[in-house]
Order: sequence, then structure tokens, then C-alpha cells
Amino acid sequence: MIVIKIGGSEGIDYEAVCGDVAQLVREGQRVVLVHGGSHLTNQVALALGHPPQFVTSPSGYTSRLTDRATLEIFEMVYCGQVNKNIVERLQRRGVNAVGLSGLDGRLWQGTRKSVIKVVENGRTRLIRDNLTGRVEQVNTALLNGLLHSGFVPVLTPPAISYDGEAMNVDGDRAAAATAVALGAAELLILSNVPGLLRHFPDESSLIRHLAADELEHVSQTCAQGRMRIKLLGAQEALQGGVRRVILGDARGERPVLRALDGVGTVISEQ
Amino acid sequence: MIVIKIGGSEGIDYEAVCGDVAQLVREGQRVVLVHGGSHLTNQVALALGHPPQFVTSPSGYTSRLTDRATLEIFEMVYCGQVNKNIVERLQRRGVNAVGLSGLDGRLWQGTRKSVIKVVENGRTRLIRDNLTGRVEQVNTALLNGLLHSGFVPVLTPPAISYDGEAMNVDGDRAAAATAVALGAAELLILSNVPGLLRHFPDESSLIRHLAADELEHVSQTCAQGRMRIKLLGAQEALQGGVRRVILGDARGERPVLRALDGVGTVISEQ
Repeated sequence: MIVIKIGGSEGIDYEAVCGDVAQLVREGQRVVLVHGGSHLTNQVALALGHPPQFVTSPSGYTSRLTDRATLEIFEMVYCGQVNKNIVERLQRRGVNAVGLSGLDGRLWQGTRKSVIKVVENGRTRLIRDNLTGRVEQVNTALLNGLLHSGFVPVLTPPAISYDGEAMNVDGDRAAAATAVALGAAELLILSNVPGLLRHFPDESSLIRHLAADELEHVSQTCAQGRMRIKLLGAQEALQGGVRRVILGDARGERPVLRALDGVGTVISEQ
Repeated sequence: MIVIKIGGSEGIDYEAVCGDVAQLVREGQRVVLVHGGSHLTNQVALALGHPPQFVTSPSGYTSRLTDRATLEIFEMVYCGQVNKNIVERLQRRGVNAVGLSGLDGRLWQGTRKSVIKVVENGRTRLIRDNLTGRVEQVNTALLNGLLHSGFVPVLTPPAISYDGEAMNVDGDRAAAATAVALGAAELLILSNVPGLLRHFPDESSLIRHLAADELEHVSQTCAQGRMRIKLLGAQEALQGGVRRVILGDARGERPVLRALDGVGTVISEQ
């Protein structure tokens, strides 16, 4: 079993990703796809007059400020446009994809953060109306039922709180939780960079291999912005029993197959 | 088994609909929900600078002109905002809802119309880039699998062509095809009118009962616009073995339970 997370940044080649997924499925591989949609969400939010806002936590992680209006735009883009676009591309290639959000069947359940701390201009303040949280439980019965029937699940945030409220969650960490819950051997996290760069944005400084116990150090010293959350997801996946996490590039040809060949940053126990 | 179609016009009370669905599910009833989203799609399409266009066929049926950009906006609203909003409302009430489009698992499959005839200013012309079609096959294995596992499916257009292309389909007729395929006893079609009105828009002229063999006559003489397609869906459902179709009002309190009590236009074989 492979869990493949496809980012939502500019430049992702969905057609190439879906071609690779179709090939893996033809070869009998079990695949679960998880996707983002941040770039398109920013565009639609701007067009609808509700510009995106991002906040940074005291520990340096950035995330989307998600009030109710933002959540609904987020759902439009992630669950509507991007999810159905990927499902359609896979269906055209003969892959019987089923697109689900974390709300559906309480697929991704967790605790909503009732309050978050953010840092603005060096000052810390509290935000209470932010609809975000973290995936703590994955409905593996639903996923395994679909996989056993030959479907390829295509998953996307939002997730659902224990109270039944939609909440934004980080897609990389949700993919990690899914890989752990399903006992996947590998987790691919593909985005619009070649992997972890020692000197961002110099692509020639790609780190080709990392041991799990180096993750915290490189996260402090090399990783920028979104990459830090990917490393956190990688760490959670490895701690949960996933054998190999690969941070790869979703911009070029054969992005999934290249990552499986070890092109990118390969992270494993030793 | 009951299939409930909730329209997407202005004034629909989703909260009341979901309350009724939760009660039916608690009573052990098997329910499949199908929904629209036309009013919100018009608003979002306008805001995104791609205003909605409607066409009328020579036989007098109106439908949304669906080019690729419209289809993607349609997916954002139907599959994203409306579908996930209903799933969330049901989850908050303890109903384990799963939202799917007709693309997912090829749930609603059919033939895309390669060309449609429309009437404009009394003249007939052909349109070729319209992504519409009709549901001919329902993936009952997927639906029954979900129902057996205790999930409540929440379904929405678009459907998928045999070539794997997303296509807009009429939601009322898709609900009818679903009711027939699942062997449902009843199909409720709820919208923002009390039922079929003999003298539209006079709500006191509600027709309370219709026999199946009267449908064609009243469709010619009374029905306006969208109501004609609802009557076509009702006819298809009854011909396919559904015992009772009820056209009801989704604007007030207890909209589903009232329709099941026969409030609205009840259509049956005799």
C-alpha cells in the first residue's frame, strides 16, 4: 500500500500524477491519493472578495486562517473543483476513483483547536474563531471497504471534529495519519520543489537521504515554511510504522514513479 | 428505502431537511439523499465573471448551458459547498453521511449528448460544446455497500460519460434513476413550491393527487419550467417500479416528514 500526497501549489502536473497512479493500479498496487488545493483556493478566495490570510504559530508553522467563509471557499475548491478534477482524470484512465473529504463517513476525525496562538509583528495573540484541528482517527473500515472493492480513494481536507464540525487540517499530516492507519509501507509527499533543499531555493542543494533521527535538526536548520510541516508529517508517518517517506517533485514527467525510484528526499529509519 | 431529492433553488431549508433525515434514519429507514445547487451556482458563476446561461429545447425543457468553465464552477458549488454542507449538518445530528458525485465510482453513468438543439428567438440552433447527458446506469453495488455499512449516501451531479468525462445531468431525473435502480418504494422531490400547481404561481391551486397516466396531460397544460422535468422524473420513477412519487415543499418545517404524510402532489399508479 502506498499513500500519495499531491500538494496544491502552483505547477503541479495532475495529468502526470494520474498517469502514474493508473500504471501503479494496473500493476496491482493499492494506492490512496490525498491532495491539496491551496493555490486555487487563494485565487478563488480573492475573486470572491474574501482574500486569504495566513498566520504563523510561535513554533514557526504557517497555516491558513480559516473562518467559516474561508472554510466554505476551501470546500468549494478542495472537495469540489480539485477533488472531482482528479477523480475525472483517473476515471478517464480506467481507474475507478472515489473522492471523499474527511467529513464523509467521519473519515478524518479529531479535536478542533478552540484557540490558537499566532505571532504578528513579534507579538503573540490568541484567535478563537479559527476552524482548524488535527486528524486523530482515520475511518479505516470505510477506506478498506473501498480498496477491497477495487476503488481508489482520493481524499481531501477538511476533516471533522468529534462534535461533527468541519475543520481545516494540514493535508501532509492527514496523509501521514492515513498511511499509519492503513499500515502503508510508503508515503510520498509531492509538491512543487524537488524535495528538501539544504539551501532553499537552490535546487542543486537537494538532500537525497535523511535518517529519521536527523529530522528535527534539519527542520530547524534548513526547512522553510510549508516544508517544515511536511517534515513533521514525515516524522509522524515513520514513528507510526511507515517504512519510507519520500519528498518528491510533482512538476515534471512521471512524478510518482520517479519518487518511488528514490528521486527526491528519501527519509527512513536509518 | 426512500430516495429524497432536495432542490437547489432559493429558500430551501437544509437544516429542516437534515433534521427529518436524521429522524428517519433513527427509525431504521434506509435513505438516499440527492441534492441540487442551482441558485448558489448562479451566484458564484456571476461573482467569478462567468454568468450562467440557460437554453430551452424544442420540446420546452430548460437547462443550464454547460461549457467546461461552467462545469468546474458547478462542481465547486454542488460537490464542494452544498454537498459538504449537507454532510456536515447530518454528521452533527449523528447521521454517518457520505457525499459522492456521479463521477465517484462511476456512480451515475450515461451517454453524453454530443449535440443539443436549442430554441432562441423562435429559431432552432445546434450546440456542440455542451457537457450534458443522462444517467443510464447507477452503481448500485457502491450504494448498497455504503447502505449496508450504515452510511447515508448524499449524491449530487455531475455524472460521468462512458468515456469518463464529467457531464451535467438533471438532478431530478438522476434521483429517479437512483430510486429505480435501488428498488426504492418512494421518491420525494422537494423544491421551493408546494407541489404541482394547476395555475402557477397560485399556491392554492395545488394538485394533491395525480395518477401516472395523467402526467403527460398535466405536463402539457399546467407545468412550467423546472416543474416539467420533475414530472418527467416522476414518470420515469413510476415506470421503473417506484410506488409513490411526492412533489413537496422544502421551505417550511418538517419538509420530508410532511411530504411522506402526503402533503404536496402525490403521484402513483392509480
